[in-house]
This record gives sequence, structure tokens and C-alpha cells, in this order.
Amino acid sequence: MFGTLFQSSDVVSTSFGVATVATLATAVLALLGLSWVADRWRVPVALSGVALLASGLHYLDAAQIWFSTQQMTSAPRYVGWFVVQPIQVASVFFLARIAGPVPVGVFWRTVAAAILMVLCRYLGDAGIFNPTLGVLLSIAFWLYILGELYFGPMSEAVRKSSRPIRLGYFWIRLILTIGWAIYPILFFVDVVIGAGHARSVIVLYTLADLVNLITVSMIVLAAAGKERF
Amino acid sequence: MFGTLFQSSDVVSTSFGVATVATLATAVLALLGLSWVADRWRVPVALSGVALLASGLHYLDAAQIWFSTQQMTSAPRYVGWFVVQPIQVASVFFLARIAGPVPVGVFWRTVAAAILMVLCRYLGDAGIFNPTLGVLLSIAFWLYILGELYFGPMSEAVRKSSRPIRLGYFWIRLILTIGWAIYPILFFVDVVIGAGHARSVIVLYTLADLVNLITVSMIVLAAAGKERF
Amino acid sequence: MFGTLFQSSDVVSTSFGVATVATLATAVLALLGLSWVADRWRVPVALSGVALLASGLHYLDAAQIWFSTQQMTSAPRYVGWFVVQPIQVASVFFLARIAGPVPVGVFWRTVAAAILMVLCRYLGDAGIFNPTLGVLLSIAFWLYILGELYFGPMSEAVRKSSRPIRLGYFWIRLILTIGWAIYPILFFVDVVIGAGHARSVIVLYTLADLVNLITVSMIVLAAAGKERF
Amino acid sequence: MFGTLFQSSDVVSTSFGVATVATLATAVLALLGLSWVADRWRVPVALSGVALLASGLHYLDAAQIWFSTQQMTSAPRYVGWFVVQPIQVASVFFLARIAGPVPVGVFWRTVAAAILMVLCRYLGDAGIFNPTLGVLLSIAFWLYILGELYFGPMSEAVRKSSRPIRLGYFWIRLILTIGWAIYPILFFVDVVIGAGHARSVIVLYTLADLVNLITVSMIVLAAAGKERF
Amino acid sequence: MFGTLFQSSDVVSTSFGVATVATLATAVLALLGLSWVADRWRVPVALSGVALLASGLHYLDAAQIWFSTQQMTSAPRYVGWFVVQPIQVASVFFLARIAGPVPVGVFWRTVAAAILMVLCRYLGDAGIFNPTLGVLLSIAFWLYILGELYFGPMSEAVRKSSRPIRLGYFWIRLILTIGWAIYPILFFVDVVIGAGHARSVIVLYTLADLVNLITVSMIVLAAAGKERF
Repeated sequence: MFGTLFQSSDVVSTSFGVATVATLATAVLALLGLSWVADRWRVPVALSGVALLASGLHYLDAAQIWFSTQQMTSAPRYVGWFVVQPIQVASVFFLARIAGPVPVGVFWRTVAAAILMVLCRYLGDAGIFNPTLGVLLSIAFWLYILGELYFGPMSEAVRKSSRPIRLGYFWIRLILTIGWAIYPILFFVDVVIGAGHARSVIVLYTLADLVNLITVSMIVLAAAGKERF
Repeated sequence: MFGTLFQSSDVVSTSFGVATVATLATAVLALLGLSWVADRWRVPVALSGVALLASGLHYLDAAQIWFSTQQMTSAPRYVGWFVVQPIQVASVFFLARIAGPVPVGVFWRTVAAAILMVLCRYLGDAGIFNPTLGVLLSIAFWLYILGELYFGPMSEAVRKSSRPIRLGYFWIRLILTIGWAIYPILFFVDVVIGAGHARSVIVLYTLADLVNLITVSMIVLAAAGKERF
Repeated sequence: MFGTLFQSSDVVSTSFGVATVATLATAVLALLGLSWVADRWRVPVALSGVALLASGLHYLDAAQIWFSTQQMTSAPRYVGWFVVQPIQVASVFFLARIAGPVPVGVFWRTVAAAILMVLCRYLGDAGIFNPTLGVLLSIAFWLYILGELYFGPMSEAVRKSSRPIRLGYFWIRLILTIGWAIYPILFFVDVVIGAGHARSVIVLYTLADLVNLITVSMIVLAAAGKERF
Repeated sequence: MFGTLFQSSDVVSTSFGVATVATLATAVLALLGLSWVADRWRVPVALSGVALLASGLHYLDAAQIWFSTQQMTSAPRYVGWFVVQPIQVASVFFLARIAGPVPVGVFWRTVAAAILMVLCRYLGDAGIFNPTLGVLLSIAFWLYILGELYFGPMSEAVRKSSRPIRLGYFWIRLILTIGWAIYPILFFVDVVIGAGHARSVIVLYTLADLVNLITVSMIVLAAAGKERF
Repeated sequence: MFGTLFQSSDVVSTSFGVATVATLATAVLALLGLSWVADRWRVPVALSGVALLASGLHYLDAAQIWFSTQQMTSAPRYVGWFVVQPIQVASVFFLARIAGPVPVGVFWRTVAAAILMVLCRYLGDAGIFNPTLGVLLSIAFWLYILGELYFGPMSEAVRKSSRPIRLGYFWIRLILTIGWAIYPILFFVDVVIGAGHARSVIVLYTLADLVNLITVSMIVLAAAGKERF
């Protein structure tokens, strides 16, 4: 895939390599999972698998850029986030929909908020907006999604449902709260303070992506499996 | 996939990257959807998924051209349109066929009109026709398809059917009316006025493609899902 | 896939691009179709899908050769024909077998004739045979296949069967009669007369391949679908 | 895939191109076949499909080497044989297992013999062994496999079974007897006599591989199909 | 895939080629196996197939590095191990879970131990830790996993279960005991003693990976098959 020699001491290269293979492998696992989960679990499992696949494609690209140039900008990351983060939010909506009826408006509002959350960060990064304004608006949209997750109709539908759904929803919400907090923090360090896309920022972003994406997908898959086996 | 470094401020590169990952990801989603929709929904869902896949292949190619040369012509877009737009028209026909019997002649007429619509635009762009004549003929074929969609037997079959089909048909017809209007408009700017394939034209074409393709597919998938869940 | 910039006025490049995307897209469609056709239709549908896939791989290769060298010989076309044309003949046999019992000897005879038909043309083109002798022998094998299709046991089995099979068989036989006639004609122009593999020959071969392959596959798929929906 | 222009008169290039497309196309066909054969036929069909797929990957590689360097050694062939020939022997075992109980020890012995058969040839070719000794040992292991096929418990289990299995087993055994005889013969010409990996040796190896692999897989698939349709 | 000419006497190149084709072929086999194993066997079979697939991607990359540079470091191996070894441990857990209830805590502890086992080896190799300390810690985590396998609740659940599960568990545990012992041994030779990533180390690592991965997956698949056929 990359065809470039690197040393173990080159932590960034190793982390990009691991991220590519790990996201693609778990994407395959989630898509295979589709064949054994119950019918009503298929939509959230498929969405979380597609999010992993899109992220895997993005890391394949990011790793190739890094291996051939030993440089990285934040631009390829936005290619991933624009697709992955709205899909992840949609996957939580469909998880909650299994538990009980949730108005379809919630879906449109949260997915739109996720797209706007990435867009504001992107416009700030691209210099079209003021970066600080961009990240603050982005945080606002993120808080809106969290508000829907904690106090909206999804939360209510889940509360009355079976234990696997309740547990899965609880953990995914936690990851969207704590795990996603690293994105605005790193944005501040990278763009607002101006540290640039340094090696430590790259590794932290990659680790955050890996943990957030893989755990969310595996939680959805595990919750779906618990109902069956 | 592309292996080329670019900055966030490079909006064209970002939009090509997002278009590639987004179309491929939603193509996978639509094809996965085939395994959970009802039998009679399979043909329109498969067609909209294949349209997305063809578009994803085309954007993969367009993005690679852009990343390696920082230039773009309209030629690769026709490679996509020749395949995608007839498939999309066919997918609407099969959506209407679920609602009730539609004469098979409508299928041949609308698909032929879609191929001719792209062909006339292409011949104008390639300088084989007069560009203005090409785009006017193209608009005529587009209006013919719209006529079939609004007043033809498809519209009648849908009118008496279930709500998800009616709603899905309504929204897709709207996208084929408003969303497809951008193609002749941009053709005028690009070829007839002669602004060339400028950066803003590229981004607008890409956004139009993304919104038109992804929403049509997701509407078909959602309509198919509503009957089931 | 190709990563090479070209203009709309470059008709050969556009036709290779369209051929690649169109064959791969319809191959996916035919293979997806396998999941919804009735059991006894699976073999002909699978064969026509695999023929499209092999043709798509061949066009991917032919297009890459063209985009990087702006030249083409007939050699890559034989790579496609050696695989595609015997598979298409086999697909017609299995279509007829749905209608009623056809002796298995017909299968071996027609597939062998299809391989020999391509082989004779190839040996003539490669200069191992006299080209005129090669194409005449090739025509003889083609006429043998047509004889089997019009007067052999396949034709008889089909005559007594359901309308979709009769119609499908009729159209495919017509394409194998009229559509395949272009191959010896272009061979005469290209090799015997010695016009070489000119641009117009390339575009005509590509259009013939596209129409022949895609219509045959779609007819098989449509006939299979008519029995079901 | 290869992106290199070649002439029809270049028989080696054409044969590599045909081998790649033909093995990949029949691999897809065999894997699709999995969805319509009866349950107990799935293991031999899957194994023969995977053998074709591994061979296809190997030919894709061999063809790329040939197209870019116009040279070939026997080394890439061993990459294919190490994987393909043990899988083919395993596929015959599972074919016989459908007919009746065969002790699992036969499986381990024949697969080990197939690996050793390739290994001895490889060690002779690589100069680690005396080449003549290598090929003689390789022939010994091949004769052992044939012994198992003609006089072992597999043969006995098949004798009492249905006609499709008996016929399939008969033909595959014949191919493993006659078709596989070409490998030690060509090894003698290539390594022991020292003719080198000449053009005619390459074409003969490729034709042998094509006929052996594709017919074995198609026989397994046909035998599986005859029980069903 | 690699497109590089090499001689049979080049054992490293041949071993990388064989490793790539063999892991990808058996990965396809394991994933196909999913369609015929019983429902409750799907998770361990899928996990062992995904481990093979991840390993195949890693070898594709390692082989390309080797073919283009004729050099290898241990870094690309860690890319494989970070993904493959935790997945293999998870696959053993789910195998034991079929036999009877195993507390989910065992899963988290053994998977975490597998990740830490690779991480300690990696940190030692990268020079962030003292290499000797790294490998000793790695051995400690490996012994912990073995302890769970021999004396933990998994072992107990398996003891009371059917023969295929007992046999499969026994063999996989043996491979994780003997086969995995080669990793710290080679680490000592490679890093602590400082022999470097020599040709013999590369071939031994590759053979160990091949045998460990393929046998574990085939054992899981065979155990799953024995319950069915």
C-alpha cells in the first residue's frame, strides 16, 4: 500500500500505518457483522461500518501523503471528518430509533449540526473565517448535538429500553462527549496558537480518531450481538 | 488514493477529496441497504447505489487528475454523467413501477432522453456542435424528462400509492428539476460565455453532483426503509 | 484510475473513459441482480455479469494504455475478447437451458467455436496466419454459432417456453448476428486493408463492445426480472 | 492494470494478459457459484474459487513484471504454485468427502505431499538442492498424490456415489495426472537442460496453468450444479 | 502487485510473495466460510478471517517495500502485529464463549494484554524503552494471556464442551504457546543482541507469521465445519 521503508523509532509513520490497517480491518468486521445481527440493528451497524470504511480510505490517503513527503497538513483530515462525523451522528440516531419512536426532525437537526460543526472548523482552518470564531461556532454545534443526546427525545426513547441499548447508548454518548473534546483542543493548539501540524499533534489526532471510531463501532456491534447470542 | 499534500485553504482539492470519499461511502451504504429492503424495492435501490459507485469512480479519477496537475477540464465530468444520469432516470422509473404498472416504453424514452441530454451537451462542449445549440437541445431533452415526471404515467401511478413512495417521488422530482438546472447554467458560464473551467465552476459542479446524487440515493433508501421498519 | 487530463474534443479518451465506467457499473448491477432473480436464472445472469466484469478490467487496462501513450493496438482487445465472447456464448446456452433440456454437447461445441473464432482472428492479426484466411475462418466459426442459435436445439427449446425467455433469446440472437458483424468488418478495415488501428476504428470497436455487452446483460437481467416482479 | 502497449504478434504478452483476465473472471464465477450450490458442495467450490483467485493475483503480478521488464524468471511462478497446488489437492479431498466418509489423515497427507512437491521443485530451482534430485523428489510426491487419488480411500468413497461426483472426480484426477505432468517436463527443459525461462516455456507454463486451473474449477462447479438444477 | 523481477534463489523475495498470496487467499476462504458455519460460530470465524486480511494487507505492504528497496526494518511488522495479535486473542475468547458463559472481563483483560504485549515490544524496538525491559514486559503480558488460556474461565468453559471445540481450543492454545515464542526470541536476536533485521530473521518471522496465522484460522474454520457437516 505505501511501499516506503521506515524505522520503528518513526512514531508518526507507525501510527499512520496502524491507523490504516486497524480502521480497514474493523470496517470489514462491522460489515461482516451485518450478516448476523438482527434486522432492526442493521442500519446503525451499517452506518458505523461505513464510517470506519470512509475513515480507512482517508487514512490510506493520509499515510501515503506522509510516507512520500514526510509532511502533513490538516486538509486531508477534513476530507475524513466531513464524511465520518455526520455518519457517526446518524448511527447514534438509528441506535436510539431501535429503542423507540424518535421524531425524524431530530435526525435532520443533528446531522446538519454535525456537518456545520466540521464546516466551521474547516472554514476557520482555511482562513475564510477567523479561526477562533470558527472553532467557537464548531463547539456550539457540538454542544447542540450533546444537548440532543443528553436531554432530547433520543435519550428518552433509550431510557425505557433493553439493557444492551441503554449501555451502548451510554458509552457512545460518553465518547462523543470526552473523545470529541480533543478535536477543538487540538484545533486551538494547531491553528489558533499556531503550533502548526506538528508530529505530536498528528499522533494525538490519529490516536483520538482510532479510539473514537473503533470503540463506537465495536460498541454498536456488541450491543447488536448481545440481543442475539 | 491521491498521495498529494494540500492545504485547507485549497478549497478545490478539499472538495474533490470530500466528493470521492462521500460518494464511495454512500455507494457502500446503498449497496448494503439492498440486503434489508423489501424485494420489490431492490431494483431502484441497486440502481441508485450503482449511480453513486460510478460517480465515486469518476471522482476518484477527477481528484487524481486535479491533485497531480492542478488543472481540470470538463471532459472527465462527461465520463461520469454519461453513466450516472441515465442510471438515475432509470432508478426513478423503477421507483414509480413499484407504485403501479407503468408502460415499459416510458423507460426507453426517458433513458434515451437522458443519454441524448448528456450527448448534446458533450457534442457542444467538444466543438462538434455549436455549443449554444448543444445546450439548448440538452435543455429540451431535460424538459422532456421533466414532462414525463410531472404529467406522464409515472406521476399517475405514484399518485395513488403509499405515502413513502409519494414523498420519495416528490423529492426526487424536485431535485431533478432544481438540482439538475445547475448543469445547463454552469455550461453557459463555462463554455458559451467562455469563463473556462475555473475554480468556482469546479466547486459548484462538485457540490451540485454531491447534493443531487447523495440525496436522491438516500431518499430512495429511506423510502424503501420506511415500508419495512 | 487514469489520472490524465484530457479535453472534451478528444473523443477517443472520452469513449475509453465512458467504456470503463459503464462496463464496471453494469457489471456491479448484474452481479447485484443475482440476489433477486429466481434460482434457475442465476447461471446466465452470473455469466453475463462476469463477461461485463472481464470487459471492464480489459477497458481499464486499454484506457490506461491510451491515456499514457495516446496509442492503441488491437492486442489488448484480444485479451478481452478471448474471455468475454466465449462467456457470452455460454450465457446464451444457459438461458436456453432454462427453457428446456438442451444436450450438453451444444455447450461444448458453441463455446469451442467461440474460442476458435477469436483465436483465428488473433492468429491472423498476429501474422502467424494469413490475415484474410484468419478472418474467413473466424467468420465460419461465427456462422456456426449463429446456425446453432437459429436452427439448433437451443432455438427449439426456447420456442415452447415463456414470453420473457422467448423475447430475451430473440434480442440476444439479433445482437450476436448484427452486433458481432462489426468485428470482422473492422478487422478487414484494420488489418486486411491495412488502415491500422486508427482513431475512428478505436471508437467504433469501443461503441460496438459497449452496446453488445451492456444490452445482452441487461436483456438477460430484464428477462430474469420479468419472471419475478 | 498493466498500462503497457504491446502488439498482437507479441504472444507472451497476450498470453499473460489473457491468463490474468481469465483466472480473475472464472474466480469471480466460482465464488458467485457458492450462492447457488447445495450446502455440502460449498467447501470444494470455495476452495477451487480461492485457488483461481490466488492464481489470478499471481498472474496479475507476473504480467506486470513481464510488461515492465520483458523478462520473466520462474520465481513468481512458485509464489503461485505454493498456494494454488495444495489448495487444489484439498479441493479434491473435500469433493471425495461429499461422496462418503474419508479419514482426515488423507487430507493432511495429500496436502503435505502437495506442499513438499512444490518445495522440492523450488529448492532445486533455487540451487539449494541439486535440480535433478529436486525434480525427482517432486515427482515422487506427485506420484504419491496420484496413488491416493487412484487407489486410496477417496477413490473408494467416490466409486459408490452419484454420477456427477463420479464424473467430476474422474476428470479432475485425469487433469492432475496428465495436466500436472507438464510441470516436471518443463522443469527439466528449463532448469536441468538449462534452456532457461524462454518464451516458449513461458507460454506453455501459462497455457498449462490456465487449462488445469479453469477446467478443475469449472468441473467442480458443474458437478455441484448438476445435483441442483 | 509488486511488478519486480526476482530469482528463485532470492529466498526472502519468494517468502514475501508467498506470504502475501497465502494470507490473502486464506483470508478469502475464512470470510467465505462465514456463509456456511452455524450462527454461533460466526464471530470467531469472522475475527480469524479479519486477522488474516489485516496480515495480508501488511504483507502486501512489506513485500512492496522489500521488492523496491531490498531492505526491511521491523517497523512494518509492528503495523501488522498491533492489529493482528489482539484480534487473534479476541477470536480465542469468542471460541471459548461458544462452549459456555465466560465473564466479559476476560475479554477486556486479554485483549488489553495483547495490545500491551505488542506495545512494549514496539517501545523497546523504537528506543523509547530499554529494549531488554521492553521484551521482558512483553513476555510478561504474553505469559498472562497464556495463564488465562490454561487456567482461566475460558479453559473451564471449554473443558465441558463438544469435541471439535475442545480440540480446536487445544491446538490454538498450543500455537499461541509455541508459535508465539518465536517473537520474543527473534526480538532478542534482532534488537537486543543487535544482529539487525537480517535475511534469516526476515524469513523466520515470515514463516512464523504464516504458520501461526493460517493454522489458527483453519483450525477455527475446521472446528466450525465439523459441527455442521
